[in-house]
Amino acid sequence: MMIVMRDGASEQEIQGVIDKLHAIGAEAHLSRGEFKTVIGAIGDREKISEIPLAALPGVEKVIPIMKPYKLVSREFHPESTLVKVGPVEIGGDYFTVIAGPCAVENEEQVIASAKAAKKMGASILRGGAFKPRSSPYSFQGLGEEGLRLLARARDITGLPVVTEVVDVRHVVVVANHVDVLQIGARNMQNFLLLREVGMQQKPVLLKRGMSSTVEELLMAAEYIVQGGNTNVILCERGIRTFETATRNTLDLSSVPIVKNLSHLPIIVDPSHATGKREVITALARGALAVGADGVMVEIHPDPKAALCDGPQSLDFEQFGEMMEELKTMAPPLGRIV
Amino acid sequence: MMIVMRDGASEQEIQGVIDKLHAIGAEAHLSRGEFKTVIGAIGDREKISEIPLAALPGVEKVIPIMKPYKLVSREFHPESTLVKVGPVEIGGDYFTVIAGPCAVENEEQVIASAKAAKKMGASILRGGAFKPRSSPYSFQGLGEEGLRLLARARDITGLPVVTEVVDVRHVVVVANHVDVLQIGARNMQNFLLLREVGMQQKPVLLKRGMSSTVEELLMAAEYIVQGGNTNVILCERGIRTFETATRNTLDLSSVPIVKNLSHLPIIVDPSHATGKREVITALARGALAVGADGVMVEIHPDPKAALCDGPQSLDFEQFGEMMEELKTMAPPLGRIV
Amino acid sequence: MMIVMRDGASEQEIQGVIDKLHAIGAEAHLSRGEFKTVIGAIGDREKISEIPLAALPGVEKVIPIMKPYKLVSREFHPESTLVKVGPVEIGGDYFTVIAGPCAVENEEQVIASAKAAKKMGASILRGGAFKPRSSPYSFQGLGEEGLRLLARARDITGLPVVTEVVDVRHVVVVANHVDVLQIGARNMQNFLLLREVGMQQKPVLLKRGMSSTVEELLMAAEYIVQGGNTNVILCERGIRTFETATRNTLDLSSVPIVKNLSHLPIIVDPSHATGKREVITALARGALAVGADGVMVEIHPDPKAALCDGPQSLDFEQFGEMMEELKTMAPPLGRIV
Amino acid sequence: MMIVMRDGASEQEIQGVIDKLHAIGAEAHLSRGEFKTVIGAIGDREKISEIPLAALPGVEKVIPIMKPYKLVSREFHPESTLVKVGPVEIGGDYFTVIAGPCAVENEEQVIASAKAAKKMGASILRGGAFKPRSSPYSFQGLGEEGLRLLARARDITGLPVVTEVVDVRHVVVVANHVDVLQIGARNMQNFLLLREVGMQQKPVLLKRGMSSTVEELLMAAEYIVQGGNTNVILCERGIRTFETATRNTLDLSSVPIVKNLSHLPIIVDPSHATGKREVITALARGALAVGADGVMVEIHPDPKAALCDGPQSLDFEQFGEMMEELKTMAPPLGRIV
Repeated sequence: MMIVMRDGASEQEIQGVIDKLHAIGAEAHLSRGEFKTVIGAIGDREKISEIPLAALPGVEKVIPIMKPYKLVSREFHPESTLVKVGPVEIGGDYFTVIAGPCAVENEEQVIASAKAAKKMGASILRGGAFKPRSSPYSFQGLGEEGLRLLARARDITGLPVVTEVVDVRHVVVVANHVDVLQIGARNMQNFLLLREVGMQQKPVLLKRGMSSTVEELLMAAEYIVQGGNTNVILCERGIRTFETATRNTLDLSSVPIVKNLSHLPIIVDPSHATGKREVITALARGALAVGADGVMVEIHPDPKAALCDGPQSLDFEQFGEMMEELKTMAPPLGRIV
Repeated sequence: MMIVMRDGASEQEIQGVIDKLHAIGAEAHLSRGEFKTVIGAIGDREKISEIPLAALPGVEKVIPIMKPYKLVSREFHPESTLVKVGPVEIGGDYFTVIAGPCAVENEEQVIASAKAAKKMGASILRGGAFKPRSSPYSFQGLGEEGLRLLARARDITGLPVVTEVVDVRHVVVVANHVDVLQIGARNMQNFLLLREVGMQQKPVLLKRGMSSTVEELLMAAEYIVQGGNTNVILCERGIRTFETATRNTLDLSSVPIVKNLSHLPIIVDPSHATGKREVITALARGALAVGADGVMVEIHPDPKAALCDGPQSLDFEQFGEMMEELKTMAPPLGRIV
Repeated sequence: MMIVMRDGASEQEIQGVIDKLHAIGAEAHLSRGEFKTVIGAIGDREKISEIPLAALPGVEKVIPIMKPYKLVSREFHPESTLVKVGPVEIGGDYFTVIAGPCAVENEEQVIASAKAAKKMGASILRGGAFKPRSSPYSFQGLGEEGLRLLARARDITGLPVVTEVVDVRHVVVVANHVDVLQIGARNMQNFLLLREVGMQQKPVLLKRGMSSTVEELLMAAEYIVQGGNTNVILCERGIRTFETATRNTLDLSSVPIVKNLSHLPIIVDPSHATGKREVITALARGALAVGADGVMVEIHPDPKAALCDGPQSLDFEQFGEMMEELKTMAPPLGRIV
Repeated sequence: MMIVMRDGASEQEIQGVIDKLHAIGAEAHLSRGEFKTVIGAIGDREKISEIPLAALPGVEKVIPIMKPYKLVSREFHPESTLVKVGPVEIGGDYFTVIAGPCAVENEEQVIASAKAAKKMGASILRGGAFKPRSSPYSFQGLGEEGLRLLARARDITGLPVVTEVVDVRHVVVVANHVDVLQIGARNMQNFLLLREVGMQQKPVLLKRGMSSTVEELLMAAEYIVQGGNTNVILCERGIRTFETATRNTLDLSSVPIVKNLSHLPIIVDPSHATGKREVITALARGALAVGADGVMVEIHPDPKAALCDGPQSLDFEQFGEMMEELKTMAPPLGRIV
């Protein structure tokens, strides 16, 4: 922690900061320039962070030097983490494709999607049972019935299943039905939910909030890992910007950035990021090329009849073409699709 | 709903859209330009919105004409809603000042804050008992003990109390202790929590999400009102932008915009928006001037010892000066502080 | 300048940074924590900033401690600057109202607008002669003919005139016709144009770029002042965000922020910021309340026939009402309208 | 153009809009819903766009249906445009790599960079002679001397040269020295400069403004093409968002979006977008994968001594590795590096 004092801060103000640091057993390292004095605080990070340094008289700003997360950092754990989902291992040489409908609508739709996903080479089935929707008038999902249909699709195809959990009271029941618990973008900073899934051992797919920085994503993951669950898969899904050509702006830079900062695997969701079917295959290729560990895409037997997000869903033929492209381009990148 | 067809959409594609509309009993109104054909969908809005029009072949985009909320709109309810909080009425001539510490830390701190708030002219006491924090290593609040301390402060000062509820399982117990349930910015689209407070009759203070549009704020309010609770107070608290001089960018334009679109009262929180004590009084004046129904500011007996958000807290003397300024400038604006 | 070394930076890397600093006569102040080493660079700021410190081996990041501007800072010049525009003084007790049409369209329109502006109490006339437009197919302004019409309006009403200059080749001719040279938002970082107006003595109205931080606005002003022209008036006009309810998001927080950081006056343009006539008066009141030195608003004799920005123009009656509101609310704020 | 009337707009207001349309020879197509009336304007687009429809009484909003650009659209010119730069053809099967230093510093540096670029397989040399810098205290480039050094580097290596032009008065002289005129991000909406390069025949590299939408980028290109110069290469270089892990957020989605909307080639600049050397190769791979026609990257013989943007420059070895990766992954994508 570096504490930058205002121009002309008094000796008393400088001493005030130093005293506060000494009081908790930290060292204060003083650096005086012509105009500015900077105090380096050295000692127990958590104790130091509890002092409201920025509120002390004479302080201009406090600049954190240490990263605000620890367990998820690559410095703490240099080797990349592999997350096992049934027979699948995310974070290694395999580039994992997760596919399925936005929402589970009925048995026929979800079974057909699962079979197509399986046939084309996807490794995990996705499908929403509890849907958070901006409008109270939109389709809200089938709830527990959706979980049962997903489980049936898994039984038939052998594909592990990921679904979103939105309610702290449902975590256990959802964990009983599915293989991966998804925390949606809107819940990335629902800290109660993070703590709850942190107490499970089921892998968690943590989507980046649409207005969250990479650092905040890693801090959200820290909540889960701190609870004891180290099986966290991060997911880039676009951030909110002024651009309206796509629903959100997919931030593919976040993939190599996260790879540098953290040992956790990261996948990409081009479907929700863009909301536009016609660019999804291109961005799935981009995800593979920048080093992501997988993609999650929405498919539907009949997108034009979908109850949710039809415009961004691939039909099975389009999905098959996407898989072919990914399979073809993966080897020179050292990945297997 | 206007459906814009792609250039060169075929007659069959156009007919496909029309057929879908007719199938649910809606009218299709066709408008052919030199390059573009536009189809106006006229009929039951909810039925129309269930058709995945944007996914139909030949459709370029779907443009909603109707607003996506109804109960909170001024068109539905032209008169401004007054929300009663104990003896206070929010949304009328009074400009309501809510003040108190970011977090309830101990009895002495909250009682001192409540007394200062009361003495300087605030109408409602705020204080956080359950704190959502970006880092798992930050102070998370006193929990139920905090609720009891807030209730004691109310008993002593007579000020009604507002506190944030973060957990669907706590809504009832929090509602039993306090006078206003606050939904924080991070939970603005926690739809479960919105439904839960919608089933209470306690007034709800709904903060705008930091990456939410005004329209999304109103849709979140619609969730609550649709549940039967019409006592919703909106709160502008800054949005996330590229600017780093303030923590977020306070969007004071949203106040007159909301006043045009909705009958609900709206207040402003300059403390969280900016994170900077030195601009809070100026922005509180701004809030009053643009037509907000109140402000919520953080005060603390000793900001430099605060466990949370010290740099943005006013001490009692600064708060007193702010109140004086607001009282002086209110009359020409037709408001009473 | 604080140079933060990566975890585990070698002694050689640390020494490499120190050597670079010593080579230009600066001091290196070393601060070693458990994980991180931080080096404070103390010495001639400009010389230090020329070393590519962030590119040196072992460096994680470089944190500037000093502000990147000097001449426009309040630390350099503690007293507020007053900019004289004919009989008007911007930056003192007077709250200056600048009004006029978006674009000069013809003699009748600009003379009528000038007379209305004068009659209602505005101090300066605005009007665009050279219009930067996003589309090549939009009205681009009358050019020099527009300048002549503005000069005529000044002769008739006595109001000084401000107009935008977009071309370095036009700076002298525009300066000969008008009283204030406006640098538009799109040109805030057109450094050639900044240098050119910096060589004039005519006051400059510098609008904040729509994606510029406050710091960048002040650096743009530094370009002008460094050239010798200290008559700079800053103008907040909204920044680009995800919100679509207004054209841009008016950042009224920037006003008290700028007042703290700089001695230059700052005004607010609610017309361009919002693009919505119905919120302009409220935001003009907000500008006055947060401490701005004036507002600039668009007026038009017949907004529904305007060639440019009709939807955000006030008609004369609406403008008169705005002026009445500002006059009424100014005294308790210690301002004169 | 669809004109949406306010709820309860009067018959007179509706007729007012219709009359305005009829007055310029356009048709008005009326569509009445239960609450809303929508008027479709059919006729000459430019004439219609000159009526200030949004300012007419009773109008809620005006929704453009047609795209605001024409000459650059794929609808107007379905085949992809190939831009010839010396022996290089941008926009076809070749994936063009442009490399060179941020700024031309001296003969040795630029010649070394040119030779390395050539040797590793780049097709075009970049280098800044006139540098737009946020701070007046930063290195501003060598100016004309820089142009001469670039020309010498071309003579030695045979690589065509691209450099930024910032001043309308320099367009001709720069065009005489180099092969491609670059319009920088800050000048994307410097319409005078766009018109000036539109009157040349030299290819233009048009960088996306850091707060510009894809639509605005295409409108800027329209300015150039409308002037007669169809040799425009677009360049995605990151947009400004709240994320601070990278300097800007590289919007790789814009590549397939632009490919759908326009016939112009588009390349990607990961160096300026991120400012971080360690992610540039990953994002260059991403650019190739999403379908860009090339990349532009900064290289320097000794990044840690660079006068400009050292932290984002690759050294020659890193650049060689990047080229190898691109060459290896290109064939399955149908591209040649």
